[in-house]
Amino acid sequence: MSWMRQEIAEQPDAVARALAAEGTRCEALAAAARARGVELLYIAARGTSDHAAILAKYLFEIELGVPVCLAAPSVFTLYEAPVKLDRALVLGISQSGEAADAIEILRQARERGVLTACITNSPDSSMAGAVEYPLLCHAGQERSLPATKSYTTSLALLYRLAVAMGARPELGAALQDSPAALQLTLNLDAAMADWVERYRFMEECVVLARGVNQATAMETALKLTETSYVRAQPWSGADFLHGPIAAIDEGFPCILYLFRGRAHDPMHDLMHRLFERNAECLLISDSDGPLEELEKRQATGAGGRCVRLPAPVDEILTPLVAIVAGQLFAYHLARIKGRDPDAPRGLRKVTVTR
Amino acid sequence: MSWMRQEIAEQPDAVARALAAEGTRCEALAAAARARGVELLYIAARGTSDHAAILAKYLFEIELGVPVCLAAPSVFTLYEAPVKLDRALVLGISQSGEAADAIEILRQARERGVLTACITNSPDSSMAGAVEYPLLCHAGQERSLPATKSYTTSLALLYRLAVAMGARPELGAALQDSPAALQLTLNLDAAMADWVERYRFMEECVVLARGVNQATAMETALKLTETSYVRAQPWSGADFLHGPIAAIDEGFPCILYLFRGRAHDPMHDLMHRLFERNAECLLISDSDGPLEELEKRQATGAGGRCVRLPAPVDEILTPLVAIVAGQLFAYHLARIKGRDPDAPRGLRKVTVTR
Repeated sequence: MSWMRQEIAEQPDAVARALAAEGTRCEALAAAARARGVELLYIAARGTSDHAAILAKYLFEIELGVPVCLAAPSVFTLYEAPVKLDRALVLGISQSGEAADAIEILRQARERGVLTACITNSPDSSMAGAVEYPLLCHAGQERSLPATKSYTTSLALLYRLAVAMGARPELGAALQDSPAALQLTLNLDAAMADWVERYRFMEECVVLARGVNQATAMETALKLTETSYVRAQPWSGADFLHGPIAAIDEGFPCILYLFRGRAHDPMHDLMHRLFERNAECLLISDSDGPLEELEKRQATGAGGRCVRLPAPVDEILTPLVAIVAGQLFAYHLARIKGRDPDAPRGLRKVTVTR
Repeated sequence: MSWMRQEIAEQPDAVARALAAEGTRCEALAAAARARGVELLYIAARGTSDHAAILAKYLFEIELGVPVCLAAPSVFTLYEAPVKLDRALVLGISQSGEAADAIEILRQARERGVLTACITNSPDSSMAGAVEYPLLCHAGQERSLPATKSYTTSLALLYRLAVAMGARPELGAALQDSPAALQLTLNLDAAMADWVERYRFMEECVVLARGVNQATAMETALKLTETSYVRAQPWSGADFLHGPIAAIDEGFPCILYLFRGRAHDPMHDLMHRLFERNAECLLISDSDGPLEELEKRQATGAGGRCVRLPAPVDEILTPLVAIVAGQLFAYHLARIKGRDPDAPRGLRKVTVTR
């Protein structure tokens, strides 16, 4: 079995470990943020970790009303700009803890007395040593190049930190139940292994979501690109209507994340727009209506596949659970294409950029 | 002649008009920002205007040290989150001034007494009426669906506002000279019209930049997708190395923006990585070394084309001038593909999203 496949399966345990081990540290960081009057969350991350940062933008703005900026690392590294972050919590996210540009942002901030923290899977890493409050993923070594368990454990720690900083208590309770939901989601494996052949020759696709699952779309697209060299492009369902939908014609594969909650209806409308263009829709959803519509459309011979999320969760938590469907799809697609998902050509596990 | 072609050519005059007409209002807004102790720029925009917002992130952080957040509009519209923006300047950008979600963010902010402004090409629009300080593009009616002159005039106003808020005076002087640089850049037209045939059958590509030209890469990719239905994917040169480069094989078209300044060397390194993979490189640059390397490579029969920027400008201003090369390429590609760049299928000029 590939490392990627195994690490996907380890996620329920890894998330449970992260939540159990880091609760106290999350509370301590939240207390420090209160004590220092933090009014801004400023996040430095790259690649998959940047997708965790995008989830954090929605999570902390929606749950806590704290504005969230995603750093453009080159502002600090190439341009050496002294950005004023006095009232910020500067948070780095890096599975390896060796993302040089994110570390540079943290180092500069800490030097100026700004509150710093990080989320990393590497306790002995440079990033863990560079900040006041390191939060650890406890995911165990990740041997596959495409990140899976380091991503979901990073999300879990972001949720846990939001709870510590005053998010709705229901979110805290639901978060504790998330390992069970992740476990159930792994059951998608068998069906997906069966019908993935349909996508054997897919060379490009778009991945669409709205709201909190923007991160899920971006992470799914990256997994597909890394493991199967599919040119997968993620879009906000809203931005997509501002231009890119013009490029979608008959049979073009569109992966949609559509869940019950605030982003449901705009995504549902978008699915209908794609039906009109006779696009191929791969729908990952917990919502009966759209799933049934796509099933009916399939029965008429039009293209598509349905992935019903086995363990529905509160909308704000869907990014933690739904990405497992995207990971499994990327894994099986790489397998059926005869590619090694563990070691994509041209990539190294630690990518150092200035 | 198409509207798009004509509006590309109008840009030097339009930018000169915007700078002449809105200087006083930019100074007044800057004074208000000082008076209210603004510590954060929070920008709401979609589509092409979002690319102007990305330029603003680099510009205001590098020149002024003011942290910049790009709003995720659904946080306000779908999730109705009361984000704390007391010390922010909330800025909407929309050529039509009818972007409903951005207007909603501005409306909520103004209700709570937050300083609001916008950049729009429509003086009588809802957005202009919703804010305290509307800044107007003075670009004249934009008849082509793909935005060109409304984008560059929006950038010009962002630069002018940065100067009013305390950016380097040299930037102010260079900005006043930018219409002349834009005029010279239009001279690329003839050569591009000649060799664009090479790309007649291009169906996908990536567009790469670092630092301040991140916006240029994104806007170029959108122009290509809108006008020629090319699936063009923009990447930060740094993020690109974190995974997507794995999908690049022999002959795959890569458009690179590479200018003298802080982002030069990382982009130059990336060009060499693409040479190693035998990618097709279309280089838009003002830098002799890389241009000569690509010319030499072409002489050996390997693929690529050089676009030498006729009017080099300070690195921070390159996004205003260099995008003209991307616009011209998108226009000529649409022409040679037999498509109407003014009216892409499936698009409307005003896209309203929730």
